Amino acid sequence: MKNAVAGIDIGGTNVSIGIVDKEGNILFNEVFAISKFKTAIEFVKFSSNKIKLIIQESAAKVKLSAIGIGAPNGNYYQGIIEYAPNLKWNGVIPLRDMFKEYFDIPVVLTNDANAATIGEMLYGGAKGMKDFILITLGTGLGSGFVANGELILGHDSFAGELGHTIVFQDGRNCGCGRKGCLETYASAPGIIRTVTELLAKRNHESELRNIPQSKLTAKMLSEYANKGDLIAKEAFEYTGKILGFKLSEAIAITSPEAIFLFGGLANAGKLLFEPTKKYMDKYLLNIYKNKVKLLSSSLDENHAAILGAAAMAWKEIE
Amino acid sequence: MKNAVAGIDIGGTNVSIGIVDKEGNILFNEVFAISKFKTAIEFVKFSSNKIKLIIQESAAKVKLSAIGIGAPNGNYYQGIIEYAPNLKWNGVIPLRDMFKEYFDIPVVLTNDANAATIGEMLYGGAKGMKDFILITLGTGLGSGFVANGELILGHDSFAGELGHTIVFQDGRNCGCGRKGCLETYASAPGIIRTVTELLAKRNHESELRNIPQSKLTAKMLSEYANKGDLIAKEAFEYTGKILGFKLSEAIAITSPEAIFLFGGLANAGKLLFEPTKKYMDKYLLNIYKNKVKLLSSSLDENHAAILGAAAMAWKEIE
Repeated sequence: MKNAVAGIDIGGTNVSIGIVDKEGNILFNEVFAISKFKTAIEFVKFSSNKIKLIIQESAAKVKLSAIGIGAPNGNYYQGIIEYAPNLKWNGVIPLRDMFKEYFDIPVVLTNDANAATIGEMLYGGAKGMKDFILITLGTGLGSGFVANGELILGHDSFAGELGHTIVFQDGRNCGCGRKGCLETYASAPGIIRTVTELLAKRNHESELRNIPQSKLTAKMLSEYANKGDLIAKEAFEYTGKILGFKLSEAIAITSPEAIFLFGGLANAGKLLFEPTKKYMDKYLLNIYKNKVKLLSSSLDENHAAILGAAAMAWKEIE
Repeated sequence: MKNAVAGIDIGGTNVSIGIVDKEGNILFNEVFAISKFKTAIEFVKFSSNKIKLIIQESAAKVKLSAIGIGAPNGNYYQGIIEYAPNLKWNGVIPLRDMFKEYFDIPVVLTNDANAATIGEMLYGGAKGMKDFILITLGTGLGSGFVANGELILGHDSFAGELGHTIVFQDGRNCGCGRKGCLETYASAPGIIRTVTELLAKRNHESELRNIPQSKLTAKMLSEYANKGDLIAKEAFEYTGKILGFKLSEAIAITSPEAIFLFGGLANAGKLLFEPTKKYMDKYLLNIYKNKVKLLSSSLDENHAAILGAAAMAWKEIE
């Protein structure tokens, strides 16, 4: 009999369900379109039955010990999803209790960035680190802070919103209703906004002038930058400058051993890491300079969310 | 036989030595001018003998269980003071090991703001809180962050430098060699610089025009503001605006239940607290609004440093 946990990742488009052992081996994984589930009730019923079936049929004779769920706006303390803007299930969803009706084992819930952070700690490059930060650079900028070996949740489970600290007080409009938040600069849509700004500001020739803003992706921008496009290159430099500055501010608070970058925009590699590291060290207070590692997440992007959710479950029953 | 610890506070001017029981009662306290000790060796010898004598003579039959030391640039992990700009003892001082030559009990060391933070947690208004921030507003701005019931030290013991996060990238010169740090605005010297700026910018009549900058104190500014001086009042409003904004940024990282203000400038009371709270809530991301308490430290300022150092010692042997 082998112990395992279920990791469930709820995203805006897909739901991924996995069964993961203590060492981070994924024994089973399947992905479903979230549109398949009209309500959270349907989703919980379906996934619970799915998990039960997998466990029953497992040749490896698996015993399920806990369930971990990563979801937008997931609240660890209350076990609920609250008004997640990217989900069709409205209002307050008591997801933990809903799963508890099917399972008599611990069920834990947190937001996606926190889950990824715990995944990095248990299965990734942060193994053995007691103080680090993970930044997810996707459609937004999420962050998880670990200090003294524990995820910082804050008194209400809402800690770790570096993406909503302010870069420019009268800066870009943010989805949160305010202006100038870091994620309006350092994220996939953020760098596209920067390109658009640069297309107005500069008069270099650039193939980017032939593509409408709505068709641009962060991946295209890396390709153009690697081909030498000056606008695309400057956009990465500018993104790194702003991100590096804000990371230097975060370092002054928790003094981490390392900062991990994860997700879409982080895949740009050197294009993003070099300016980010340069400006981070430039802006740092002396006592921190050249001490904080800037690393790429070592979790496979396709499985990171599942591993994060599973890692949370293992952490809970530790 | 009653257990007690020694709390030692090392400041730029004075050294305070106290014996403190678990409940925070100060059984003994004496203050010495630091100029009395030419070297750290002399200081350690003197204080060790002093502590031994007090314990021997104590009518209460006290047993000493640990020693806690709060000192500028005190490093918890290494037990050393490193290049503290306000101390005459130069270089790296292995204070913990030096005391260990006199005592066979745990000796712990940290910086003054961290010690005050643990003091607030054990003996002050943060009792029972797992997530809070303490800000000391004196000649500088120090800060201690507590998450999950533990002080955030970071991987190198240098966490908690909110005073050296940047308000304006090309702002006021800071002692750290950079520009625009929060402590150049929100501290006793900071508000005096603000007054000086306002005396240039405004043309109100103000008695402050008759006082040289070098004679101004934060206490005088509260008195003038309370008498209705417009420059002094505006200086508090401006200080609160900048501090409130930076607190809102810190909240987005650790989501504390409360923030405590402590030290010289915090004594200005409403003059500082009202604008700080107003702007803090104004700048906060929605999910945090009107949830974070802004409180005055409840530790007696004369004993806070000793209590902080002692609290650290108790925490260590817990």
